[in-house]
Amino acid sequence: MICCIAGGVGAARFLEGLVCIAPARNLSVIVNTGDDMELYDLHISPDLDIVIYTLAGIVDDLKGWGIRGDTFHSLDMLGRYGGETWFKIGDKDLATHIYRSYILRQGFTLSEATARICRSLGVEVNVMPMSDDRVETMVNTEVGQLGFQDYLVKRGAGDKVTGVTFRGSEYAHPALGVVESLCNSDRVIVCPSNPILSIGPILAVPRVRMALRETDARILAISPIVGGAPVKGPTDKIMRGLGLEVSALAVAELYKDFLDVFIIDQIDRELRDRIEALGIEVIVTNTLMKSLRDKVQLARTALEAAQEENG
Amino acid sequence: MICCIAGGVGAARFLEGLVCIAPARNLSVIVNTGDDMELYDLHISPDLDIVIYTLAGIVDDLKGWGIRGDTFHSLDMLGRYGGETWFKIGDKDLATHIYRSYILRQGFTLSEATARICRSLGVEVNVMPMSDDRVETMVNTEVGQLGFQDYLVKRGAGDKVTGVTFRGSEYAHPALGVVESLCNSDRVIVCPSNPILSIGPILAVPRVRMALRETDARILAISPIVGGAPVKGPTDKIMRGLGLEVSALAVAELYKDFLDVFIIDQIDRELRDRIEALGIEVIVTNTLMKSLRDKVQLARTALEAAQEENG
Repeated sequence: MICCIAGGVGAARFLEGLVCIAPARNLSVIVNTGDDMELYDLHISPDLDIVIYTLAGIVDDLKGWGIRGDTFHSLDMLGRYGGETWFKIGDKDLATHIYRSYILRQGFTLSEATARICRSLGVEVNVMPMSDDRVETMVNTEVGQLGFQDYLVKRGAGDKVTGVTFRGSEYAHPALGVVESLCNSDRVIVCPSNPILSIGPILAVPRVRMALRETDARILAISPIVGGAPVKGPTDKIMRGLGLEVSALAVAELYKDFLDVFIIDQIDRELRDRIEALGIEVIVTNTLMKSLRDKVQLARTALEAAQEENG
Repeated sequence: MICCIAGGVGAARFLEGLVCIAPARNLSVIVNTGDDMELYDLHISPDLDIVIYTLAGIVDDLKGWGIRGDTFHSLDMLGRYGGETWFKIGDKDLATHIYRSYILRQGFTLSEATARICRSLGVEVNVMPMSDDRVETMVNTEVGQLGFQDYLVKRGAGDKVTGVTFRGSEYAHPALGVVESLCNSDRVIVCPSNPILSIGPILAVPRVRMALRETDARILAISPIVGGAPVKGPTDKIMRGLGLEVSALAVAELYKDFLDVFIIDQIDRELRDRIEALGIEVIVTNTLMKSLRDKVQLARTALEAAQEENG
């Protein structure tokens, strides 16, 4: 069994490769919900959606989020009603939010809603939210504390970051199945997502981090930082704002209490010794996922690296 | 001031003509909400939407409901989630339901939501729901009691009707402004809508019927039955199910406690004497609204007929 820990676009790209070489029924994915938001009373789970749409083969490949070929007629109309339109919800995508909210309002959990959405879209991978409790990633900036989507999408990640808080995380329980999956898998893969904003909220759920430290699984991570810059997103601004170096080494530091193997890009090969000095095994390979072939290749490398000790 | 009492498509067609000849600020419309329904936790007000979209000039003219050129991508996706798709909600139309539900959940009334929707779409006519309380039109059939949309849309009006109930009507209060509008207008026009299913729920709100009986306004209705058949919809099946004759005369009987003037189609001219015997003045004209010109012509006839006594 393989358990993945995932944020949004970067993680989904990696998972797209992974499902090409590992049977879906052997895979579980624990997804960040720190970015979840309510808009028009609809519960939106951006990272869950990106992961599910990607695994369902319906993701908009160019953007990495949303549904391929989606239209935005409903959002345009909501704009006429004076509604918020900065968060780009397509018409098909909207159906997911409506359905999820409907399930939640009937008293079901986010895990249950997620399972139903996966079943409807033919996704056989066990996709789980990190928690059914509300955890909110708040970005502290020079203009005050902002919700994550507010910071990233509405304000275009333009504000200077001074800190990040995961509101509610200390009292959040892992969703049903999360700890079991971490403990019963033989391999855990931390996908190449923003270590602070995407993986951070998952690790901030106390029993998730505890399970990662205690599991017998071999834990591998893929660096989202290549050559001192993030592959996408504002990871650099965030890391700098927290006084961290923007490097694969700094990411390794964040994970060192549980990490066994770290995959870094060829360009960062000179960091190998310093990361190994943290007690972490290092694999150097091409980590840029431009084509499906790149994704499959990286997944293959990760699977083999994670298996090595057991094999 | 002119106050109209309206159901869905037939009423909207008449109103389309009326706003061409009467200033919007002099018009108020009391709309049936007996057909309102919840779908995916969204509050849908079919008749309000038809009237508002028509007055906003965005209605799908061919169907008479929905928004012109709308797509159905969201509904298709809801279908993938196993959701109900028999009620055809377009993507833009969906935005109205999302926005309305959002306003209602914030604690505002349906009247307030309606006013905001009208303002956003540039509708200056004062459109009001008949009541902010829930009234549900239930159709008793040989297969049991059905919700109105269930009977009409989902099951295609195919079940034999044995009765109609307006659940909640006896305790429903007219929405703010409704009674005032009925009492302070000099003309009240009952639009050519289904007298049982569309106008019926409005009249079933006790203080609405009371206000109609008490107002000094001249009250005029346009027959939705032409030549013994409804212009559209299942009015005939409903009337027959209730043991009523399907005729303009039977409609006049339903309204006789408050009606001053009844406009019937030329084809029904031989009913004139029998309707006049009920103490109702009769105008015979062409009531079929095929073109905008027909609509304007009928509105002109109605306005003049309603004015006659005062003028």
